[in-house]
Amino acid sequence: MAEATALLADIAGVGADGRRGGYSRHGFDPAELELREWFTAAARRCGLAVETDRNGNLWAWWGRPGPDAVVTGSHLDSVPGGGAFDGPLGVVSALAAVDSLRADGFAPVRPLAVVVFAEEEGGRFGVPCLGSRLLAGTIDPDAARRLTDQAGTTLAEAVAGAGLDPARLGRDDEALGRIGRFVELHVEQGRGLADLDAPVAVASSILAHGRWRFRFGGEGNHAGATPIDDRRDPMLPAAQLVLAARRAAAGVPGARATVGRVLPNPGGTNVIASTVDVWLDARAADTARTRAVVEEIAVAARAAAAEEGCEVAVTEESYGDTVFFDASLRDRLVRGLGGVPVLATGAGHDAGILAARVPTAMLFVRNPTGVSHAPAEHAEPADCAAGVAALAAVLGELAG
Amino acid sequence: MAEATALLADIAGVGADGRRGGYSRHGFDPAELELREWFTAAARRCGLAVETDRNGNLWAWWGRPGPDAVVTGSHLDSVPGGGAFDGPLGVVSALAAVDSLRADGFAPVRPLAVVVFAEEEGGRFGVPCLGSRLLAGTIDPDAARRLTDQAGTTLAEAVAGAGLDPARLGRDDEALGRIGRFVELHVEQGRGLADLDAPVAVASSILAHGRWRFRFGGEGNHAGATPIDDRRDPMLPAAQLVLAARRAAAGVPGARATVGRVLPNPGGTNVIASTVDVWLDARAADTARTRAVVEEIAVAARAAAAEEGCEVAVTEESYGDTVFFDASLRDRLVRGLGGVPVLATGAGHDAGILAARVPTAMLFVRNPTGVSHAPAEHAEPADCAAGVAALAAVLGELAG
Repeated sequence: MAEATALLADIAGVGADGRRGGYSRHGFDPAELELREWFTAAARRCGLAVETDRNGNLWAWWGRPGPDAVVTGSHLDSVPGGGAFDGPLGVVSALAAVDSLRADGFAPVRPLAVVVFAEEEGGRFGVPCLGSRLLAGTIDPDAARRLTDQAGTTLAEAVAGAGLDPARLGRDDEALGRIGRFVELHVEQGRGLADLDAPVAVASSILAHGRWRFRFGGEGNHAGATPIDDRRDPMLPAAQLVLAARRAAAGVPGARATVGRVLPNPGGTNVIASTVDVWLDARAADTARTRAVVEEIAVAARAAAAEEGCEVAVTEESYGDTVFFDASLRDRLVRGLGGVPVLATGAGHDAGILAARVPTAMLFVRNPTGVSHAPAEHAEPADCAAGVAALAAVLGELAG
Repeated sequence: MAEATALLADIAGVGADGRRGGYSRHGFDPAELELREWFTAAARRCGLAVETDRNGNLWAWWGRPGPDAVVTGSHLDSVPGGGAFDGPLGVVSALAAVDSLRADGFAPVRPLAVVVFAEEEGGRFGVPCLGSRLLAGTIDPDAARRLTDQAGTTLAEAVAGAGLDPARLGRDDEALGRIGRFVELHVEQGRGLADLDAPVAVASSILAHGRWRFRFGGEGNHAGATPIDDRRDPMLPAAQLVLAARRAAAGVPGARATVGRVLPNPGGTNVIASTVDVWLDARAADTARTRAVVEEIAVAARAAAAEEGCEVAVTEESYGDTVFFDASLRDRLVRGLGGVPVLATGAGHDAGILAARVPTAMLFVRNPTGVSHAPAEHAEPADCAAGVAALAAVLGELAG
């Protein structure tokens, strides 16, 4: 019978990032394509029939695909240099739960499917939850096709390379219409369960969340030959943005604002940059608070750019309002699992996208340190097993 | 007869950087190796005999290689996304000057050579003037062999790939001992000549100059799930370093401090970085002032790191004291060229390295905007021709 930790061990060698540490597995790149093949084979070993939808999401069906299905799953891609659990734990736990139900002689009344969503982290094309957004129709497919990775490859080219028809990307009412309920299991990305000394929780909500790119433009020039007074150096307002993000987020309880990615062009040690791109990730309890944080940061960025004689252009790369998971499904899971804790999260998930379309719930598995999006991300085998048991119980109840 | 601008046009397609703009040609990379082949063929067409020294510098000889030679030349590599003139103008002007002398029936009494130094910008291995430093023995060859590029390739591997023996890198007294005088022609990297309305100048001095890498270490984590108060985000002290560099340089007349390269690891939008590398380029009139500027920046960086619970490690990647070019050679050039202006520069050059070993001079060619290390770097064809004429006159006088 498939165990979650044994399945994770199967893929431990795929997409390891020697430079950053951890894993770099991004939508439709060689590592992610290898994981798709691995998933297809593993799901078939569990007796499931695998199909790919128009948006590159994988569906492994127990029983005939049809309406009112109980769907579970997560994603296999990672952030750059990410951990082994964020995404894959939900996928392998789903397969293990199916195996466990089958071993117990369970026969689903409703169809049951394990789904793998494409490019959840947005690590390659910049938009998080890209596969579920396309499926749910919450991103314009024309805009999506034009998304580019750092090498200049468009999403349209990347999906074509994976054997999909880029013209068919977009809202998929057929696939969506089959989902009766969606339950995603995920490693927790904070210390909530560690502090409560419990292995599993049910999710209540996700913070509002967006990503913005600030492009500062100045004058590229020689770092030695250009006097300080003659400079228009976009690195200066870029640095002010980093500090403004911290100030703005610290001023709003529960808000977060992060700069984790900076790209000076041309990026030479002895060169004043001509442009600097800075990506801002901002989240707060609701849209009003999130927008206020971002606006405060943008005002500071514009003032700093003007002071240096630089331009700044702001692009919203993605935005999603606060997600409150279906209250009745949430309460049903809590009851069915004997009163497990309920936790909110600041992390985005495909479940947050689907929640706007279908009754959706999430299970979290304890993370002893709370560290996530980093190689130190971890969940103990016993907690992974508790997660599988909880997911099997939930699937059994919902599909039985 | 070879014209400087026609020779530059020959190589206009080599190493063009589609992403950054301009040229990216770095020591022993495919573009730079192609330029070496091009140079070898072009020098042979000028009747010169080309050889490669132990450190990968190319020497094209007019007459039998020997002591008291008059040597001119520059480099063919660029900064990332650099201009067409920084380096190549000195090389093509040298070939054009040789052609012009030969056409005038000049017969050198002393040997004359055109040299191409390897990796002058340090764009690949981080140390500027690497070829001339190795030749002159001002960098430890063991340390040099261990230098790595961004892909993790060592200098030893790169030179071996170019057909050189890495064990033979280092001070080359035979090659050095043949140089009687060295004259480097270079596009000016400021607006000195534009302001004086003159096409050509002779150099007086180069600012003291060093490069330092600051590695800030914090805790990689999730950008959404990690509360602000729990963060140890190395991007914060990195931003403070950028601002401190500006403050410190602005406080010392003539000093420059620049951050043009920043590398967060892992570099994901939704990831708090675990480390951020920041490269500082700092220059001032003398060592005391340069060290004071860097120390002020380092103190601010350490304080900012401590405030965020981060570590910081500082590595000096290169350092060179102020260079004063040989006064008698300088005055001889000025007189021979009919009283052209004399200019100081903030830009480093191979001539600055050789000046510690042999009488050395530089000629600058007017740059109408002063922009350098950027695609907009330019010199008018008439000024390039004036540069060739001046260089031919200097070589004729010194080698005649």
